[in-house]
Amino acid sequence: MAERTDVIVDRPGDRHRVVVVGAGFGGLNAARGLRRTDAEVVVVDRVNHHLFQPLLYQVATALLPPGDIAPPLRQVLGKRNRVVLGEATDVDVAERTVTLTQTDGRTRLLGYDSLVVAVGSTDSYFGHDEWRRWAPPMKTLDDAVALRGRVLGAFERAAVATVDAVRRRDLTFAIIGAGPTGVELAGQLAAMTRRTLRGQYPELDLDEVRVVLMDALDHVLPPYAPALRRHTEAKLRALGVDVRLGRKVEQVDEDGVVSAPTAGGEPERLSAGTVVWAAGVRAAPLTAKLAASAGVDSDKRGRLVVRDDCTVPGHPEVFVIGDTANHRDLPGVAEPAIQQGKYVAKVLRARLAGGSAPGPFRYLDLGVMATISAGDAVADVRGLRLRGLVGKVAWSVVHLAFLVGWRNRAAVLAEWAWTVTTGRRNQRVILEPVRA
Amino acid sequence: MAERTDVIVDRPGDRHRVVVVGAGFGGLNAARGLRRTDAEVVVVDRVNHHLFQPLLYQVATALLPPGDIAPPLRQVLGKRNRVVLGEATDVDVAERTVTLTQTDGRTRLLGYDSLVVAVGSTDSYFGHDEWRRWAPPMKTLDDAVALRGRVLGAFERAAVATVDAVRRRDLTFAIIGAGPTGVELAGQLAAMTRRTLRGQYPELDLDEVRVVLMDALDHVLPPYAPALRRHTEAKLRALGVDVRLGRKVEQVDEDGVVSAPTAGGEPERLSAGTVVWAAGVRAAPLTAKLAASAGVDSDKRGRLVVRDDCTVPGHPEVFVIGDTANHRDLPGVAEPAIQQGKYVAKVLRARLAGGSAPGPFRYLDLGVMATISAGDAVADVRGLRLRGLVGKVAWSVVHLAFLVGWRNRAAVLAEWAWTVTTGRRNQRVILEPVRA
Repeated sequence: MAERTDVIVDRPGDRHRVVVVGAGFGGLNAARGLRRTDAEVVVVDRVNHHLFQPLLYQVATALLPPGDIAPPLRQVLGKRNRVVLGEATDVDVAERTVTLTQTDGRTRLLGYDSLVVAVGSTDSYFGHDEWRRWAPPMKTLDDAVALRGRVLGAFERAAVATVDAVRRRDLTFAIIGAGPTGVELAGQLAAMTRRTLRGQYPELDLDEVRVVLMDALDHVLPPYAPALRRHTEAKLRALGVDVRLGRKVEQVDEDGVVSAPTAGGEPERLSAGTVVWAAGVRAAPLTAKLAASAGVDSDKRGRLVVRDDCTVPGHPEVFVIGDTANHRDLPGVAEPAIQQGKYVAKVLRARLAGGSAPGPFRYLDLGVMATISAGDAVADVRGLRLRGLVGKVAWSVVHLAFLVGWRNRAAVLAEWAWTVTTGRRNQRVILEPVRA
Repeated sequence: MAERTDVIVDRPGDRHRVVVVGAGFGGLNAARGLRRTDAEVVVVDRVNHHLFQPLLYQVATALLPPGDIAPPLRQVLGKRNRVVLGEATDVDVAERTVTLTQTDGRTRLLGYDSLVVAVGSTDSYFGHDEWRRWAPPMKTLDDAVALRGRVLGAFERAAVATVDAVRRRDLTFAIIGAGPTGVELAGQLAAMTRRTLRGQYPELDLDEVRVVLMDALDHVLPPYAPALRRHTEAKLRALGVDVRLGRKVEQVDEDGVVSAPTAGGEPERLSAGTVVWAAGVRAAPLTAKLAASAGVDSDKRGRLVVRDDCTVPGHPEVFVIGDTANHRDLPGVAEPAIQQGKYVAKVLRARLAGGSAPGPFRYLDLGVMATISAGDAVADVRGLRLRGLVGKVAWSVVHLAFLVGWRNRAAVLAEWAWTVTTGRRNQRVILEPVRA
């Protein structure tokens, strides 16, 4: 019993069709902003959920279950939109089609009247894709669940190691990249070791655990004010994190990381059983296909340079937002993507209603924030600089507010309260057999 | 940097060493019962958590996150016991050693003074192991997470199918075996389709979904009173479950299941995209190794026939409990394993203290219970027969009571309340890319 055809041609009907590729912060907000229009909205994603990436490191460190930060697209969007799972592999702006590989392996040529490309970013290994095997990224739920298993498995392997150097390697966790992801992951790993696992590994001296945070820059959290950076660095060190700045990664392999001082000097090998890549990102591959099809430029991080209204030059029906776009070089965080998604929906609503177009997209900078520990976060909000418990409260309120759904907010708040109070983490399951 | 040796010889020291193989209901209770003794207790398991199997079908149907029913062994046992992750592959009762394959791939020869074998059961395909590929079991957390992905993925594939027969196959879920696992899974799948997914698949007519529950016997839930069986069957049918009794499975393949009436008649093919094996079980493979080493008998389900005090004939230092043992043919559910685990701890405590041995193991039959739907469960407790909401309340209280940890009880209760109230299920993430 086979399907009749391997290629499905899916052209728009009478209604104006908006295809939104990617259901991250940008795509989700664009689709939601079109709910009350007559347009047919088709949302395409590789996975069946919207991922709240800012809390992904809490899945990787056994604090939150995946579902709490990943509402199903069908639930969030399904009643008003079509949802198609599949990987968008190409765009043809002349034919106005997106090529998808569906979950059943077949190809769909999905026609559009308007297109919103919000496929986000992927990790960049600066030309060393072979490092990915030893230093996987933490971008998707699958990445986070796999990292959780690797971290928990490392403690189990260390517990049965008989050679000191092997045990120390198993207990060394290296994070490459001291941006918000690296900082937050390092802080959580340190907290997990010091509090959650305390007393549960009689075979081990947990003081041997080393969490190493490396960056080629000479400071953590590049976009933050210097005082907040210094605070973060000092607090991480107080948590026991080995912060190594001004060190360029020269090699990642089975045994760990080789890095050299950027100021010049001898390379040094760090033997580490777990290495996480939290360094460079570049726009997802579909962006290059779109740039080629539309004959426009992308920047050195692969982002498409868009016009003031988030459209592709020469193609007012094609919008590019979030990490996929370079719009006055906005940072690759959630807020620009959210605001652009809402803006694009507004432009399309105006066009569909035959009204006048809104002015160019203007980014309202709401600042940046990153958590360090259970009682400490830094926030840099339009000149207002918060740190310590005040920063942590602000961080918590903002993160809960941006989570989708009241149930998830309540569940995440309950998990935080539980872990802060007891030190326990409830999602310490290693899925898949533990193997070296 | 390699380990010095591939085989670690790990003999008991001065303290009496009890090795507990398997941290299910039996092993966990045996280990916990030895907490206040001077014995060195070593718990061995393949996975890093104790699994509360009775709620596994709620992980498979996106209701509960894995961590809520799987507390980490290190947290539950780690402060008082040694925990070693690995697969026990052999037992030598003359040498008093268990052979383990550790998570780092090396072998450990783990010596014991007393041994508790509680490795549980594995699925039996009645000589057709090739069916496993098409009809995987639901025994482990990995099984349940994989089944969740397959079920949710089937709806996504159906949503893009273009041939009626393909779509109907994708929307057909066959469960082989109408014991408690099969009944509970069928009821949940029906509820998920009718309530959770309602309205979220505009491309599909969800009335096309078929949940088929098959069994070779002519009734569901074999150990229950006939009136409760009839109630269960009628209620499942009312939920839309297609209950097909008196049908023997003759073939499972890529396309589905072929079954024939046990009363004689033509085989019939059911085209099903998802098939779950909830039929036969047999004792896990280590049992056969133990039986061979001790020169004792196992029954036709591979269980070792034990003495009245749960020991292996001729080896009073070796205990076999739970699904691994045949002790007067007790059913393979949680309660006998729990009681046997506690009993074995009592015997060992008496021996360690030099006191007199307790009498033979006596099973206190607390009855059986199975849930049908959000407001209906059947319970058969020493002649007391409950059904409907009263049964469901009893079922809920008992299941919460047996969960390990107050946090898990609160979390599971909250998830139940949420799903009963809203119909939503919060763990609808498909992990790993969706592929046909």
